[in-house]
Amino acid sequence: MNGHSGSIARLMESFARLPGIGRKTASRLAYHVMRMEEAEAMEFAAAIVDARNNLHYCSCCQNLSDEELCPICADDSRDPSMICVVERPRDIPSLEKTREFTGYYHVLHGLISPIDGIGPDQLKIRELVERVSGGEVREVIMATNPTVEGEATALYIARLLRPFEVTVSRLAFGLPVGGDLEYADEVTLTRALEGRREIL
Amino acid sequence: MNGHSGSIARLMESFARLPGIGRKTASRLAYHVMRMEEAEAMEFAAAIVDARNNLHYCSCCQNLSDEELCPICADDSRDPSMICVVERPRDIPSLEKTREFTGYYHVLHGLISPIDGIGPDQLKIRELVERVSGGEVREVIMATNPTVEGEATALYIARLLRPFEVTVSRLAFGLPVGGDLEYADEVTLTRALEGRREIL
Repeated sequence: MNGHSGSIARLMESFARLPGIGRKTASRLAYHVMRMEEAEAMEFAAAIVDARNNLHYCSCCQNLSDEELCPICADDSRDPSMICVVERPRDIPSLEKTREFTGYYHVLHGLISPIDGIGPDQLKIRELVERVSGGEVREVIMATNPTVEGEATALYIARLLRPFEVTVSRLAFGLPVGGDLEYADEVTLTRALEGRREIL
Repeated sequence: MNGHSGSIARLMESFARLPGIGRKTASRLAYHVMRMEEAEAMEFAAAIVDARNNLHYCSCCQNLSDEELCPICADDSRDPSMICVVERPRDIPSLEKTREFTGYYHVLHGLISPIDGIGPDQLKIRELVERVSGGEVREVIMATNPTVEGEATALYIARLLRPFEVTVSRLAFGLPVGGDLEYADEVTLTRALEGRREIL
C-alpha cells in the first residue's frame, strides 16, 4: 500500500509515461487534476480523445491536420517555389515563429536511422519527390536536426532530388545567438568557421 | 496561424493549464500523445475521467478514496491511538514512505489562510474534532508544512483539541539531512538550535 487510491495511481501511471515526467511530477499532476474544476478535467480528457480521433495527415505536406489540407497548405498566399522539409510536425511552429519562411512545408515523420530499423520507405519521402516532380518547386530547404540522422537524411534526399531542377539547401550551422565561444563544442566551432561570412 | 492544428492546439492548452508545465513542454506533450499507441492515449483520457468520477472522500480520514473507507482507514492493524494531520492527500504517500508512522491520517484539504479567505470552516477540522472526541486517540501529530499557514493551522487545531485528553505534537524543524550549514537560512538554523538534542 503506497497511500494513493487506485484511480489516482492509474492516472499517475498515465502521466508518468509522458516524456520528461518523473514519478514526483506525475503525482503532483494527478492530484492537480483531482483539484481542478470538474468541467476543466473533462475538457482535458476530451481534448486527448478529440486530438486522437481527428488525427490524420495533410494530403499535401503530411503535417498532422484536422482537415484534408492543413491551414498552411490551404493558404495560397505563400510561396509555392519553396518547400522546407522537417522531421516532425512540431518543428513547423518553431520555424513559423521566425516569420522568415513564407513557402510550404513537408513533414518526413522521422529520420533515416538504420540502427532503429528506419529506412527511407517508412518516411514521407515518396510524397516529397512527388511534390517536387510537379515542377513548381525551385528550392527544397532541409531543416532536419543537426544530428547524424538529420544530416544523413538531408544528404539522402538531396541525392534523390538531383534529377529535378531544384536547389536543395541546408540550414546553416554555427554558434547559437547569445552563446559563448567558451562553451561551444569543437564540431560546432568547426562548422562556424567553415560557414564564416564576410562582413560587408 | 501558428502552425498547430486546432485539436492539437486545444490539447496543448489543456496541458499548459497544469502546474509547472510551460508552453514548450505542453507542445512536446501534446505531440507525444499524437505519436502514442491509440490504446495508450485512450487509457490516459479514461484515467482522467475515472479518477474524477470515482472522486470522493474517505468517510473517516477525508483522504481521496475510491471506496467508502480508504485502504489505510480500512486497515485495522494500524495504531488507533495516533492521528497524523496533513494538508493535502499527496502528503500521505510521502509520510508512508518513511515507514515510521503506523497510526491513521486526517486530511484537512487546505490550511487556514485569511489572505485567501480560507477559514477553519472550509477545512475538514470539524471531522477531526469528531474523531478525537471518540476517546481512542492519544496523540495528534500536526504534519502541516513549515510555512506561516501551516504553523497557524497547527496552532489553531492544538488549541481546539485542548479540552480532550490528547497530546498534540508538531513535526520537528531543523537542518535537512544531507544539507549544509552554509546554505541553511537563519530561521531554520534558529529552529535547529532550539530543537537541539543531547547526544547519548
